[in-house]
Amino acid sequence: MEFKVIEKTPLFKALSDLGKRIFLPAGIFYWSGRAKKEAELIGTIGTAYGYEKDFIDGGSEEWLPCYLEDFKEFSSLNVRSVVPYAPIGGVAEVRKSWKNWIVKKSQSNDTESIEQSISLPIVTQGITNGIFMICSFLLNPGESIISPNKRWGNYDNIITKNLAANIESFEFFIEGKFNVQGLKDAIQAVSKKQKKIIIILNFPNNPTGYCPTREEAAQILEALKDSQDKVKLPFVILVDDAYEPYTYSDEVLDISFFYDLLKIEGDIIPIKLDGISKELLAYGGRVGFATFGLKRNWIDTDEEFEALKAELNNKLEGMNRSTISNTNHFYQAVTQKMFTEKGMDRIIEAREKVKQMLKERYELINAELSNIDSPDISIDPNAGGFFLFVNLNPDKIKASTFADHLLKKYKVGVIPIEKLNLNINGIRIAYCSIDLGKIPEFIKRIQLALEDF
Amino acid sequence: MEFKVIEKTPLFKALSDLGKRIFLPAGIFYWSGRAKKEAELIGTIGTAYGYEKDFIDGGSEEWLPCYLEDFKEFSSLNVRSVVPYAPIGGVAEVRKSWKNWIVKKSQSNDTESIEQSISLPIVTQGITNGIFMICSFLLNPGESIISPNKRWGNYDNIITKNLAANIESFEFFIEGKFNVQGLKDAIQAVSKKQKKIIIILNFPNNPTGYCPTREEAAQILEALKDSQDKVKLPFVILVDDAYEPYTYSDEVLDISFFYDLLKIEGDIIPIKLDGISKELLAYGGRVGFATFGLKRNWIDTDEEFEALKAELNNKLEGMNRSTISNTNHFYQAVTQKMFTEKGMDRIIEAREKVKQMLKERYELINAELSNIDSPDISIDPNAGGFFLFVNLNPDKIKASTFADHLLKKYKVGVIPIEKLNLNINGIRIAYCSIDLGKIPEFIKRIQLALEDF
Repeated sequence: MEFKVIEKTPLFKALSDLGKRIFLPAGIFYWSGRAKKEAELIGTIGTAYGYEKDFIDGGSEEWLPCYLEDFKEFSSLNVRSVVPYAPIGGVAEVRKSWKNWIVKKSQSNDTESIEQSISLPIVTQGITNGIFMICSFLLNPGESIISPNKRWGNYDNIITKNLAANIESFEFFIEGKFNVQGLKDAIQAVSKKQKKIIIILNFPNNPTGYCPTREEAAQILEALKDSQDKVKLPFVILVDDAYEPYTYSDEVLDISFFYDLLKIEGDIIPIKLDGISKELLAYGGRVGFATFGLKRNWIDTDEEFEALKAELNNKLEGMNRSTISNTNHFYQAVTQKMFTEKGMDRIIEAREKVKQMLKERYELINAELSNIDSPDISIDPNAGGFFLFVNLNPDKIKASTFADHLLKKYKVGVIPIEKLNLNINGIRIAYCSIDLGKIPEFIKRIQLALEDF
Repeated sequence: MEFKVIEKTPLFKALSDLGKRIFLPAGIFYWSGRAKKEAELIGTIGTAYGYEKDFIDGGSEEWLPCYLEDFKEFSSLNVRSVVPYAPIGGVAEVRKSWKNWIVKKSQSNDTESIEQSISLPIVTQGITNGIFMICSFLLNPGESIISPNKRWGNYDNIITKNLAANIESFEFFIEGKFNVQGLKDAIQAVSKKQKKIIIILNFPNNPTGYCPTREEAAQILEALKDSQDKVKLPFVILVDDAYEPYTYSDEVLDISFFYDLLKIEGDIIPIKLDGISKELLAYGGRVGFATFGLKRNWIDTDEEFEALKAELNNKLEGMNRSTISNTNHFYQAVTQKMFTEKGMDRIIEAREKVKQMLKERYELINAELSNIDSPDISIDPNAGGFFLFVNLNPDKIKASTFADHLLKKYKVGVIPIEKLNLNINGIRIAYCSIDLGKIPEFIKRIQLALEDF
């Protein structure tokens, strides 16, 4: 495959050296694809096949991938959905279903333009692997990605420790609002060091539970547009949508920020990273998706726009092939069964119970926390996801000391985050796994612990 | 965690910059671990939990990870083995079972010394991911790994395209035997460029089906020892055991070459890469394992030797955390069920039927090929795995032209491999997926196609 179209886009300018050189060679796939269509006798398939009766007691006359019975016993799916490899980019039907799901989640009437402007989602081995894949696709060692200071700790493992790239942090909140100026300043700073701006945003956020209000979302969007106009570099925004459906307040944006970014023209490229872990409550499934927002105005003809999608897909499949080969089959097959047998509306309906349960906990825990009258704590704005974050006065209470005291004296477990260089000192509370009935006691003990300091 | 012991070993000298810097930070795991033990009220778990009755119609009073029914419907495993995350390094019991499995596969009586000298296998997302993980753990961009010229094509994707490292190739065979001198020369060449020797070997081999005879294995081992004595650099040997159990001739080594490497003292470090894809016939499961052979004589005390294992494990978990987080739960759970409910001997027994089936095909296809009397072909030595390789005279028959002709005129599909710079021109036949009854016709058509040239 040649990469003539993608080379013309602002996306190409934002790729790392790895992103520029990676591709999936045609070789083996070209020949096995042709064999499937043209051959009577096929000697291309590197999976052991046989007549089921020859390798399973009481097996059928069917020509099947050889398997051990246990993998069939523990799953009611057809052995063809459990034993063989899934395709490199993911099961084709799952990719299509997830594309429809992304269109559906937009809550937009203009489904056609969304469908047109997004790539076919590629399956990643969970969202972590999506973040790793996209970051290595974009960032060379030493280059920077912009992120709020409060973020999932694993970003630092992926970006700093693994890829030897940098995170340009900015203070997340100013007076209980998203720090738009901080984001602009970070962009300005990075624009002086490199020829692309890469940003990662995560709403609802881990660890704070923050979701932007509609007004804040509009301000962030405006800031991105203004900054891009000013620095004239390609912008790529990684939208980490791990907690996408879990928003609990009418005031906040209840769809992904990806859709806002998709609508604006020009050199702002959103990449949506989502998956079944929280959306379909299957953490152990390791099925994530990476979906690119592509702007039609980069390209002259519709034909070339489709070629761009094919070129990008080949590169991403090259990334998968050279790191994980492909993602497990069982969870992809179950996901597809859910979409075909149950349908999107019934998935949402089944999940609604969980969302309501979390919403009640969210409301109660925030109410209880607001009753604590202490100058030494503040709660970050939160309206979604699985967590909230309590800041502690760093001059008086070290977060790790507080967590230790809370655990020892009050038998309450929380995660302290203490990164004084990033101006973070507080505790993350995962109310997603605390029974509603225990929340008042949980917060009471935190209050008691606070009084000890 | 400090890395005081590993820094003293030859392994550390062989690590890449990434390998040297990576680790798994204690933070969140330390606090959630303590909470599990010490807390009455836990707010550390980032997975939604609830009483089953609150999110499933007709659910129980049990406190469970929130799930959607489909993931339960399609699997008879407990929801706790399907829905939640598996641990970063893999399900603890699976890791232990696989360690026992590796000991068992050694066919050795001295199980204790094997058990002592290997690390606890870490779960990778299939063997591809194991190769990617270990190569990035060892190789900086520009550094070289040594491999025979005939190798799985994906090595090139991982090493060259993804990691920007080099493969130092040597001619695999000389007069139908493993080219021991070629390996030695390659080591010599690389020793002039870098301070470590990294080698990848794959027996039974893809694409040739080659397995070393016992004599050849002894020669390779001797060559490695001699070379290491000579160049005095740390040697790391990646043993790609994807096709481990599938050997069909009494003359060849029927256990992994890993065990030979494990026995020798000094700075030769074997890393075993194996997994369920072919061993348990679950390609779509994406469960692989990486296991290090560690030499007791590197270290003074038993205590420090255990510390070395812990430090290495932390680094490998850091690799997982920063790329894939963890591997899917379902296939790990089924694997564990097989080990506990069925047991190792019965797994081998169930698989034996598949192995016998493949052996019959192996014998027949080699017999049929030997009947072709043509100066323009030669069959590489083969005695195991899923494939064999037919070399074509490059002066007369281009492999891709031959494959195209074979497909068009005779409707037979094979994979041509044509890398003239590596002295490769031939076709790979995957007899693992060809019915025994069709093999004579398959080879007859190849003979007819040959006669056309």
